[in-house]
Amino acid sequence: MKKVKVGVVGYGVIGIRLATGVSMQEDMELVGVADVGLTLSVRALLERGMPYDFYLAVPENRKQLEDHGVPIAGTLEDLVQKCDVILDATSAGVGAKNKELYAKYGKKAIFQGGESTEVADVFFHGYANYEKGLGKQFLKLTSCNTTGLIRAVDCIDREIGVENVMLTIVRRVADPGDYHRGLTNALKVETVPSHQATDLMLIMPHVKATGVLVHTPVTHGHFISVNIKPKKDTTKEEVLQFFHSHPRIRVVRTADGFLGNASLFRYARDMGLPHSDMYEIAVFEETVEIFEGHIIFGFHVPQEAVVTPETMDAVRAVMEMQTDRLEAVGMTNKYFNLK
Amino acid sequence: MKKVKVGVVGYGVIGIRLATGVSMQEDMELVGVADVGLTLSVRALLERGMPYDFYLAVPENRKQLEDHGVPIAGTLEDLVQKCDVILDATSAGVGAKNKELYAKYGKKAIFQGGESTEVADVFFHGYANYEKGLGKQFLKLTSCNTTGLIRAVDCIDREIGVENVMLTIVRRVADPGDYHRGLTNALKVETVPSHQATDLMLIMPHVKATGVLVHTPVTHGHFISVNIKPKKDTTKEEVLQFFHSHPRIRVVRTADGFLGNASLFRYARDMGLPHSDMYEIAVFEETVEIFEGHIIFGFHVPQEAVVTPETMDAVRAVMEMQTDRLEAVGMTNKYFNLK
Amino acid sequence: MKKVKVGVVGYGVIGIRLATGVSMQEDMELVGVADVGLTLSVRALLERGMPYDFYLAVPENRKQLEDHGVPIAGTLEDLVQKCDVILDATSAGVGAKNKELYAKYGKKAIFQGGESTEVADVFFHGYANYEKGLGKQFLKLTSCNTTGLIRAVDCIDREIGVENVMLTIVRRVADPGDYHRGLTNALKVETVPSHQATDLMLIMPHVKATGVLVHTPVTHGHFISVNIKPKKDTTKEEVLQFFHSHPRIRVVRTADGFLGNASLFRYARDMGLPHSDMYEIAVFEETVEIFEGHIIFGFHVPQEAVVTPETMDAVRAVMEMQTDRLEAVGMTNKYFNLK
Amino acid sequence: MKKVKVGVVGYGVIGIRLATGVSMQEDMELVGVADVGLTLSVRALLERGMPYDFYLAVPENRKQLEDHGVPIAGTLEDLVQKCDVILDATSAGVGAKNKELYAKYGKKAIFQGGESTEVADVFFHGYANYEKGLGKQFLKLTSCNTTGLIRAVDCIDREIGVENVMLTIVRRVADPGDYHRGLTNALKVETVPSHQATDLMLIMPHVKATGVLVHTPVTHGHFISVNIKPKKDTTKEEVLQFFHSHPRIRVVRTADGFLGNASLFRYARDMGLPHSDMYEIAVFEETVEIFEGHIIFGFHVPQEAVVTPETMDAVRAVMEMQTDRLEAVGMTNKYFNLK
Repeated sequence: MKKVKVGVVGYGVIGIRLATGVSMQEDMELVGVADVGLTLSVRALLERGMPYDFYLAVPENRKQLEDHGVPIAGTLEDLVQKCDVILDATSAGVGAKNKELYAKYGKKAIFQGGESTEVADVFFHGYANYEKGLGKQFLKLTSCNTTGLIRAVDCIDREIGVENVMLTIVRRVADPGDYHRGLTNALKVETVPSHQATDLMLIMPHVKATGVLVHTPVTHGHFISVNIKPKKDTTKEEVLQFFHSHPRIRVVRTADGFLGNASLFRYARDMGLPHSDMYEIAVFEETVEIFEGHIIFGFHVPQEAVVTPETMDAVRAVMEMQTDRLEAVGMTNKYFNLK
Repeated sequence: MKKVKVGVVGYGVIGIRLATGVSMQEDMELVGVADVGLTLSVRALLERGMPYDFYLAVPENRKQLEDHGVPIAGTLEDLVQKCDVILDATSAGVGAKNKELYAKYGKKAIFQGGESTEVADVFFHGYANYEKGLGKQFLKLTSCNTTGLIRAVDCIDREIGVENVMLTIVRRVADPGDYHRGLTNALKVETVPSHQATDLMLIMPHVKATGVLVHTPVTHGHFISVNIKPKKDTTKEEVLQFFHSHPRIRVVRTADGFLGNASLFRYARDMGLPHSDMYEIAVFEETVEIFEGHIIFGFHVPQEAVVTPETMDAVRAVMEMQTDRLEAVGMTNKYFNLK
Repeated sequence: MKKVKVGVVGYGVIGIRLATGVSMQEDMELVGVADVGLTLSVRALLERGMPYDFYLAVPENRKQLEDHGVPIAGTLEDLVQKCDVILDATSAGVGAKNKELYAKYGKKAIFQGGESTEVADVFFHGYANYEKGLGKQFLKLTSCNTTGLIRAVDCIDREIGVENVMLTIVRRVADPGDYHRGLTNALKVETVPSHQATDLMLIMPHVKATGVLVHTPVTHGHFISVNIKPKKDTTKEEVLQFFHSHPRIRVVRTADGFLGNASLFRYARDMGLPHSDMYEIAVFEETVEIFEGHIIFGFHVPQEAVVTPETMDAVRAVMEMQTDRLEAVGMTNKYFNLK
Repeated sequence: MKKVKVGVVGYGVIGIRLATGVSMQEDMELVGVADVGLTLSVRALLERGMPYDFYLAVPENRKQLEDHGVPIAGTLEDLVQKCDVILDATSAGVGAKNKELYAKYGKKAIFQGGESTEVADVFFHGYANYEKGLGKQFLKLTSCNTTGLIRAVDCIDREIGVENVMLTIVRRVADPGDYHRGLTNALKVETVPSHQATDLMLIMPHVKATGVLVHTPVTHGHFISVNIKPKKDTTKEEVLQFFHSHPRIRVVRTADGFLGNASLFRYARDMGLPHSDMYEIAVFEETVEIFEGHIIFGFHVPQEAVVTPETMDAVRAVMEMQTDRLEAVGMTNKYFNLK
């Protein structure tokens, strides 16, 4: 089988993980990654022994990188030409600019959630609207919170229908290692509805949603409290069954020691997973309840890696590697060992 | 008018504030406060020049206190005998033991939310069930989160009726200065429903409630995201009007710089308020929304001081200082300058 | 006695405290405060009932302030004309611009530590170099950490002489209520020597100093670990005696419950001090040690208020209210009840 | 070559890493790990597919583990009998009890820093006193901070001699995932000298040391500010050269983006290192300075993994796998790829 050639542009928290993710998909080939200069992550790539090639997006920085010993495989334009699909994980706004380059060479590209929705033909989620991405040139993924959220809502929606969703997002304010943003002993409240709710309605237009969002001074994952009004009556056991059956949803119990975001991070680290990452969202069993006909539950979103599987799905969609939704996500899950 | 004689037992975060609160009620007299030994707060009381008397609950510590220069006005038993009402703000479990002493002298006592509900004749909230406390011997107040929550829910319930309430509580995990508890870079999830929801149903038995609770590593106030199903349709403007009219609810705007718990703490501190405390809960205007017939809003609970007004109401109830609910809370509000 | 007329320009964390501080000095009169618009602190001033006048530095904002009910006593220029001395507590860089206005009217001005040293005739500390400020037009205060540090070093220097100082500053990264800066689960290391060490050498040119600085995600005060090489041998008891004798240094014990910055904040709050502020630095007795001829100790710096007394000293110096150093600082201490 | 058989008792943060570490030493064989029950880490071990055997220290928990599907290779006693050396990483106090079992079977054992020093024949550090451990039955390692510290001090001491050391330890208060301890917005000060200084003097009795320690609310590594009085004059360049030559010391630059503990954690994670761990301490180049004849520098200690190499050294010592210090640490370094 001929592998789909994939490049990653923007080698930050998300880009590193997309590169790792592509490497794990046996029907894809990671051509290389591109970034603008000698960042910490590029230093780490060098120290790892360059498991994949590095392309330089800002030619003026060539000397600095070469002096430091980083082999440069070519320019950003070189990388684009060698790929079938580009995963653009640059900072918000840069992707829109890069799009011209991708268009120039007729390449497909998949943008991350920070980019504006207009950049893409379709606002995409592997589970919720895979078919819409088939054969398209430009897709935009949902952001980390929204990706996790839609997994859960779509999971219930396909079983018993969802009328509306009311969220409270307890957002981690920065990633581990971030020094350019942070809160110290402060909660920060956002205007209702949060973008996760409005984004959900773009992907699932038959559902109404709203959300309160509070930033909190932690780094290991968001917590989302969800209140869903389903179309049919259900039970706690049934809802748990839906979640258990979903390969990208993990059900955990505080009684087992999964007390919150930090337990899940530690668990992934104990597991020896690459970058200590978990791909699944994790529903806390003790937060699941049926209340006055509504489904209540709380779950954890591992912000660094959660979008990786859906990004692989997006590659499958634009390249029409699989035309069936479940076959596509199933292939991604298989390579990620998600059951 | 003869002032009601009030003593405070347990001189910690809550006890200090109850002492300050009683001092501000012109129809009450603060007889004194009691605690077990030479705590930081007792050191501070001494350095302030003993604005009120100190009684010692553990006689063995007398020498240490006297050596340090703290004048001791008597024993705990002495304090009890001199008072009409005791405000017991001791650690959970101690109040139940102290109750025997209060009973021995036929005194009334008001316990804080940490104590078990069985300790009291009535589980009390000044606005929601004032009448039930009238003339009783033992009342128990709701905890800080529940006190703030019931203010908001009762406020709406009295106007348009409330069917049910779904909460997400973003809880501050420790008070400023706490070293015996704390979280570092971790969220901690609790089993649904949280006690605030079940406590609300004890006070307001005609309302159904549930709640998700997450502890967060901050110290300056809880944030509660509320979803209320009212009995009648309403509008955002009307809901805001309800809140604006309530003397113990403040409506603030993120657009004005009230970005979260830390802004409100700073505001109280800028105001020069005693102990930098605010008695009101604060609803963030930008979080108020009507969604599919539900009222959505988020508010801040200043955990150290929020129970002070309702505790003053409780004194009014047990002593029958006012028999009318609105007259009673109005008197408390007047002395606290709450409009 | 004719009171010295003082105005405060810049009504933020420092400006509020300088206004409170001036109000407490019986030989000074607070003419008013100035700022650029309707900040949270100005809202708090209004809610307090305008205990002092507000002048508007940005005329275009007049309507917004008036619509909100803030009485405006005049422009910044009006305030300057009415004062003998201006305390400029604006953001770094603004003070240098304001200086032209102060110069235009021949007024004296005292700038805070964030301003560049060139803005002033003398870099000033009340205890260390009071005499240099006498009759000058423009002084610049040391920053909060440096002010606290110089108190301690000068205290020892005047008794037994100091050869050199090696610091490690564990810096609080933001003030309570700050949302524009912060760290989450991160320490941030600065280049050696930190500015506090170089600033100390500017004020005390006969002492050598260096310092390591680490920002930490807390808000309630800096901790400085000091290693002093004195000119004469000393003992732990003697050093403690030096500190005990200094009116702006408090000696506290972890054994008494002063476990760190948060205990001291809570203590000030329990005390009911204005804005829950403490003016003294606090040396932890259990950190004091003589080691190989060096004096080791650690102390706490209450960053919001620590510069207030030395700023009052600066007013005394420029206005020649007292010509003797100890008389001057003693007068400030008297009005602040510092013994 | 016959591999040395090693077992790990206590499968927590340290035990997991010792198991990983032993797996990487080609001249050692990991017989298995033991713990008391179905902890999160044991769940993770199961989910990883049991890369090594699990032995159960508390027989009563057998059913719970088996019901969950964890294969049990035997009891703690079984494990001990199969091993040449036990690495005891249990909670403080448990190791002293386990020692009886190790003694019963005449096995060697290596305890971690939390255990009391009396438990062992020698208090051990691979670089500083390897020879003292040769052939002994029981060793105790230094704690994480002390292990890192001694690396740095011993490194300088062997080159130019060290007279004394004055530390300030900015300690991370909890590991990622810890819920049983933590600080929220608080620094906590300890009595001088901290145990790291006294432990250093036990290992390096010819050096005098003292230390101030402050706990800070972060999880990703300690920061230690060091002031060393060397026996010979030196330069910044020479000191940096000493550090660069040490295989377990990394020199990093804030100018390159290594801003503090969180950058180093992110870097290890980017590198894809097992458990996102780094074995080296990291000296921040910008903090190195020669000041008045003293060497000043600051470094980072990755608390979870730093003791792993020295523990491998300890196995080499007790088993006399190498009798020469540099040969022994060199073998450990080789298998860990430390240069």
